[in-house]
Amino acid sequence: MNSSPEWVYVDGSEQAAVSATDRGMAYGHGLFETMAVVNGQVILAQSHAERLKLGCSRLNIPFSAEMEHLFWSELKVLSARLYNGTLKLIVTAGSAGRGYAAPRPEPRRIFLGYQPTEYPQSYREDGVAIRTCVYRLPVNEQLAGIKHLNRLDQVIARCEWMTDDWIEGVMLDTQGAVVEGIMTNLFAVIDGNLVTPKLDRAGVVGVMRSYLLEQAEVLGLPVQQVRLPLQQFFEASELFICNSVIGIWPVRQWDQSIFKPGPVTHQLLDITDQLFKVKTA
Amino acid sequence: MNSSPEWVYVDGSEQAAVSATDRGMAYGHGLFETMAVVNGQVILAQSHAERLKLGCSRLNIPFSAEMEHLFWSELKVLSARLYNGTLKLIVTAGSAGRGYAAPRPEPRRIFLGYQPTEYPQSYREDGVAIRTCVYRLPVNEQLAGIKHLNRLDQVIARCEWMTDDWIEGVMLDTQGAVVEGIMTNLFAVIDGNLVTPKLDRAGVVGVMRSYLLEQAEVLGLPVQQVRLPLQQFFEASELFICNSVIGIWPVRQWDQSIFKPGPVTHQLLDITDQLFKVKTA
Repeated sequence: MNSSPEWVYVDGSEQAAVSATDRGMAYGHGLFETMAVVNGQVILAQSHAERLKLGCSRLNIPFSAEMEHLFWSELKVLSARLYNGTLKLIVTAGSAGRGYAAPRPEPRRIFLGYQPTEYPQSYREDGVAIRTCVYRLPVNEQLAGIKHLNRLDQVIARCEWMTDDWIEGVMLDTQGAVVEGIMTNLFAVIDGNLVTPKLDRAGVVGVMRSYLLEQAEVLGLPVQQVRLPLQQFFEASELFICNSVIGIWPVRQWDQSIFKPGPVTHQLLDITDQLFKVKTA
Repeated sequence: MNSSPEWVYVDGSEQAAVSATDRGMAYGHGLFETMAVVNGQVILAQSHAERLKLGCSRLNIPFSAEMEHLFWSELKVLSARLYNGTLKLIVTAGSAGRGYAAPRPEPRRIFLGYQPTEYPQSYREDGVAIRTCVYRLPVNEQLAGIKHLNRLDQVIARCEWMTDDWIEGVMLDTQGAVVEGIMTNLFAVIDGNLVTPKLDRAGVVGVMRSYLLEQAEVLGLPVQQVRLPLQQFFEASELFICNSVIGIWPVRQWDQSIFKPGPVTHQLLDITDQLFKVKTA
């Protein structure tokens, strides 16, 4: 999980370092996307691009037609180079002088290419154990949903445990509603409905989450975005976590409660398996 | 305000760039201090060091005896080199692989040396105009007080206006209490008491704010840390903002309300003037 990148591209050239005056470093003034690359193709590339654009608009970072062009051309070249692995893109407001004001941000693009992470097969088949984090996500409608670089909430929550027993931590907001995992979104089957937390007050609208919501609709599954306390999730008949890199992992244990992957989870696992099956070019 | 640094030191050597895998960039996993340097001396160096140490402990960044030694020796060399200006120090959790977990952070030190910013003399003498920001600070006890790198709240608030009419924006928390300026702390004289917002739920405990609270006690001024709505600040008889670089600026206008520097402000202005008067070595 904690491996180094194979290579780094900054604004179109291979280099391992970024200006120390970048507003990404100074203030976290930027966004990121973590994308799975399979046989040279970026999975759900369009959705990543759309979330990135939305995030830029929310953070006053111009996402020009030229930038969009660069994004797609670099994505093509670098996913071909990586071929299989994880491609992380950071877009920041670029370099600037001291001070919070950002009169004319010139965005910076940082692509990091990582080898594929090998997860135990049991995660997908039997599920993973997750825990509830003590740390609570602050409610902040203006920053909710986007994948910005201010991630201390996740860093602090992830510091709560050091053992490998727990694969993920679930975060509640300060008002007690379940929001998401530290690195994943959360789905549950409750009373026959596929439910996932609303992300209008906190959390990241995951690209895989959006894809699964679409697919569930196609399958005719009843879907709800909800604001529910912990206890109601513990009463779920199925539970799983998801993100763009892992796809879906069923939850087999949450704190002291035990779960089993059920029919809805298996149906959606099949769909993500298909999604990640990219023919060799 | 938006000038470039004269030089940058990263982990003890002069270089303008930082590893793209730094956790400061990835997650804002770090802290910063912005220090005034006058005639080769860092103003309130000890207080900056203490806040930095506190921040490191809150963010699980080890601040070892070796790091403290490096901090002081580099501060000495670089403040002598800068002689007059603003010294910004960023301390991050260092480079790491992908993922929020930070098993063994090896901190990184980034010093940026800036020429002195020339502010109009009228700011200090007649005061400045400030406005209330629409954007609200989320309540977050765990991150409150420290000067961490997750500064999107300030970036977004500072995007609310582009003209030079307003020198500073005041931020309220999501519960309506006045917290601080975007780049300053706020003081007021209300009913004869010197008051400043409590910073246990949001905001940065400014080094200059702490100094002024100490000095006010020495002067025998009645001081209170308060949680008050906007309206009560508008009824203040005196108002001023402060930080480590500007010292104190009286507020002459806040939104549509007009203020005048009074005796308490003048008393504390004298004290900051003394603080910044460092004899040439």
